[in-house]
Amino acid sequence: MDSSFDAGATVLREIRFGEVRYDFYVSAGDGAWDELRRRLSLLDCDRFIVVADQGLPAAVVNKVESVFASVAPTVALAATPSEKAKNIAAIDELAEQAIRAGATRRSCVVALGGGVVGNVAGLLAGLLYRGVRLIHVPTTLLSMSDSVLSLKQAVNSRLGKNHLGVFHPPTLVWNQLEFLDSLPVEEIKSALCETVKNVLAICPERYDWLAANLRADGRYSHAAIAGFIDLCVDAKTRVMVDDRLEKQGGLILEYGHTIGHAAELLSGGRLRHGIAIGIGMLAAARISRLLGYLSAADETAHIELLARNGVPMAYPDDIDAAAILQKVRFDNKRGYVRARADCCDFILLDGLGKPHLNDGSLISQVGTDIVWAGLEAVAATATLEGAA
Amino acid sequence: MDSSFDAGATVLREIRFGEVRYDFYVSAGDGAWDELRRRLSLLDCDRFIVVADQGLPAAVVNKVESVFASVAPTVALAATPSEKAKNIAAIDELAEQAIRAGATRRSCVVALGGGVVGNVAGLLAGLLYRGVRLIHVPTTLLSMSDSVLSLKQAVNSRLGKNHLGVFHPPTLVWNQLEFLDSLPVEEIKSALCETVKNVLAICPERYDWLAANLRADGRYSHAAIAGFIDLCVDAKTRVMVDDRLEKQGGLILEYGHTIGHAAELLSGGRLRHGIAIGIGMLAAARISRLLGYLSAADETAHIELLARNGVPMAYPDDIDAAAILQKVRFDNKRGYVRARADCCDFILLDGLGKPHLNDGSLISQVGTDIVWAGLEAVAATATLEGAA
Repeated sequence: MDSSFDAGATVLREIRFGEVRYDFYVSAGDGAWDELRRRLSLLDCDRFIVVADQGLPAAVVNKVESVFASVAPTVALAATPSEKAKNIAAIDELAEQAIRAGATRRSCVVALGGGVVGNVAGLLAGLLYRGVRLIHVPTTLLSMSDSVLSLKQAVNSRLGKNHLGVFHPPTLVWNQLEFLDSLPVEEIKSALCETVKNVLAICPERYDWLAANLRADGRYSHAAIAGFIDLCVDAKTRVMVDDRLEKQGGLILEYGHTIGHAAELLSGGRLRHGIAIGIGMLAAARISRLLGYLSAADETAHIELLARNGVPMAYPDDIDAAAILQKVRFDNKRGYVRARADCCDFILLDGLGKPHLNDGSLISQVGTDIVWAGLEAVAATATLEGAA
Repeated sequence: MDSSFDAGATVLREIRFGEVRYDFYVSAGDGAWDELRRRLSLLDCDRFIVVADQGLPAAVVNKVESVFASVAPTVALAATPSEKAKNIAAIDELAEQAIRAGATRRSCVVALGGGVVGNVAGLLAGLLYRGVRLIHVPTTLLSMSDSVLSLKQAVNSRLGKNHLGVFHPPTLVWNQLEFLDSLPVEEIKSALCETVKNVLAICPERYDWLAANLRADGRYSHAAIAGFIDLCVDAKTRVMVDDRLEKQGGLILEYGHTIGHAAELLSGGRLRHGIAIGIGMLAAARISRLLGYLSAADETAHIELLARNGVPMAYPDDIDAAAILQKVRFDNKRGYVRARADCCDFILLDGLGKPHLNDGSLISQVGTDIVWAGLEAVAATATLEGAA
C-alpha cells in the first residue's frame, strides 16, 4: 500500500484493453492540480463540457471547473444523479445545451460525479458528433474503482437498466481522493462490495489481503483507498484485456448483477448499487450451490467478506421477491444465448475465481424455481446475520 | 451494365472498409426471396425487429415481413420518414417497443425504407443492448446507392442534422430493385445527384459513362439502376477502405453537403436530399473557383451532369441565403479543425476528383463573404439555366 498518498501524491497507470488505452491517475493533495493542467493542455481541446452531478458540493464543482477553465473555455452543465433520470431524454437535453454552448468535434466531455453521471456524460460523448473525447473525474469510490474502468456507456429504458448505450473509452481518468472525504460511509461500503466481487470472482489470491483491510465502520485512509482502487484495476484489466466489449470472459464482471440490478431498480434508488450487487452475489452463490457447482465453504467466503465490509445482506422488506423475479426476466443479458422458457440468465461460480461455463459461455440459464430458492436464501442469510 | 437484371437476378458484392465487411445484394425478380431466406437463416437470429417507413405501400411491408417471418419471429414497428421525426425521442420510443416485443442481443433490427428510416433503425441497432445486428432493406435509390454504404447512423438534434449518432455497420444489405418502380421520378433524380457527386469528387474517369446514361426524364431500366448503384459502391469503397469512420479522406463524400444540408433542413423536407446536395455542389464549385482552386471548365462539368439529370439548380425562392449562412455556422463538421472567426467549414475541389487540401485536411475554412458569393452564384446559375 502506497502510504505517500496520505501526504499528497499523483500516480499514473496506463489502462490497456486490446487496442484501447487510456491514462488513469490516482491523486491526492493540492499539488496535483498543476499536473492535471499540464496533462489537459496536451489534449489540444477547444472546449470542455463539464457534466456535473448537481448534488456535488459547490466547492468541488468550482475547483474542477477552474482547473479546466485555465486550459480551455469551459461550460458546466448539471446532471441529475438518479437512475430515474438516467435516460435518453437526459442525453438529448445535455446534447442540445452542449451544442448551444459551442461544442465541436474537438471538444471534450468531462464527467464529474458518480457512476450515473459518468454513464450519462459517457453516452453523451459517445453520441455527440458520433463521438468526442471523454474525461472522467469520478467523485465516488464506486466510479473510481469500477465504472470508469468499463468502456460501457449506457442509460436505462423504461423497461430496464442500461438497455441503451455504446462502447466509448475515456481519454483520461482523474481520481482525486479528497473528493471521497465527505462521502457517507454507506457509499464507501457500497463501492467496496464491487471490490469484494472482484476478489470472489476474479482474484481469490487477494482474499486474505482484502479480509484484513476491510473495516465494518467504512473509515479508510487515502492510502487504503488507493490500494482498493489498485486491486480493482488489476482485476478488471485481467478479464477485459482480451474482451474489452465484455461479451465473453468480461461478463464475469456482471457476477451478482442479475438480481442486484433488479433489486436496485425496484428500490427506486434507496438500495445503493454495490449493496444491491452484494445481495445479488449471495443469491448467485446460493444458486451455484443448489446446482452443485459451488462448495459451502466458498459460499461462506461470500458472507465473510460482506460481513467484514459491514453491509446489509438482504433486500429491503418492502421489495417483493416476485417483483425481483419479474424484473430479472427483462434483464439485459437476455440474448447472449438462446432463450429457454421459464429460465433466467445468470453468471455462476464453480469456485472462487472460477466461473461456471456452459458450452464456453459464462451465461447459465436457471429455472425460475431455483432462482426463487436463491432469493429466499438471501432473506434467510439476513436473518442469520441479524441473529449473529 | 448487367442486362440480366431486367429478367431477374441476384448479384452479391462484399463491401469492405478496413476490418468491417458486409454482404451487399442487388436483386430483381420474385426468385430472389428464396435466396434472402437462405441467407437470413444463417444469421441464427432469435427475432427480427422490422422498422418500416410508415409511408411504404402495404404490399412492400407485407412481402418483406412475410419473408423474415418465415425465418424467425418478426415484429414490424412503424417509423416516420421525415427529418423532423429523425430524433432521439424516436429512438427511445422504438427501443421500448422492441424490448416489449421481446428483442434480445440475438435479435436483428431490419431497416425497411429510405435514408431516414435507415438512420433511425441503424441508431436503434447501435444503441440497443449496446449494439445488435442491423440489416438494411432500402426502398429508395438514394439509400441503396448512398446511405447503406455508410457506417454512420445518426439523428438530428434541435440545432442541426446528424448531430447525434454512432458508427455501426450493417450485417447485410438487400437491395430489391422492384421497390424503386413506384417511386416518383423526382426521387430517382435526387438520388442520382449523389452519383453525380461521386463522379465529380471521386471518380471523374466515369464522367462520360454517367453523362451518356443520365436521362432528364428520370426513367431507367433495372439494369441501368444496377449500374448506378455499382458506380456508387466503387466510389464509396475507394475512399472509405482506409477511413471507415469518414474522418479523413472519406470526408470527400460530404462534398456539397455544407450548404446542401442547411438548405434541406430549412426547406422542412420540401427540398429532397440529393437535390439539396446538387445545389450545395454548385455553391462549393463556385467557392472553389472564387478561391482560384477550380477551373471554369470543371465548374461547367458540375452544371452539365446536373442538367442531364434534369434537376433544379437553385434553392427555392422562399429559402433565404442569410438563413442558410446562419445554419451553416452550426454545421456538424465544426471542430475537425480549429475554428476561425467568421469562417465556415467547406470541402472544396482543386479539380474533378481532386479535393483541395489544407495541411493534409479536406476541410477548408471559408470566409462568410465568399460563402455569400457562392450562395448568390447558385441563384444566378438557376437564372442562366432557366434562360437556356
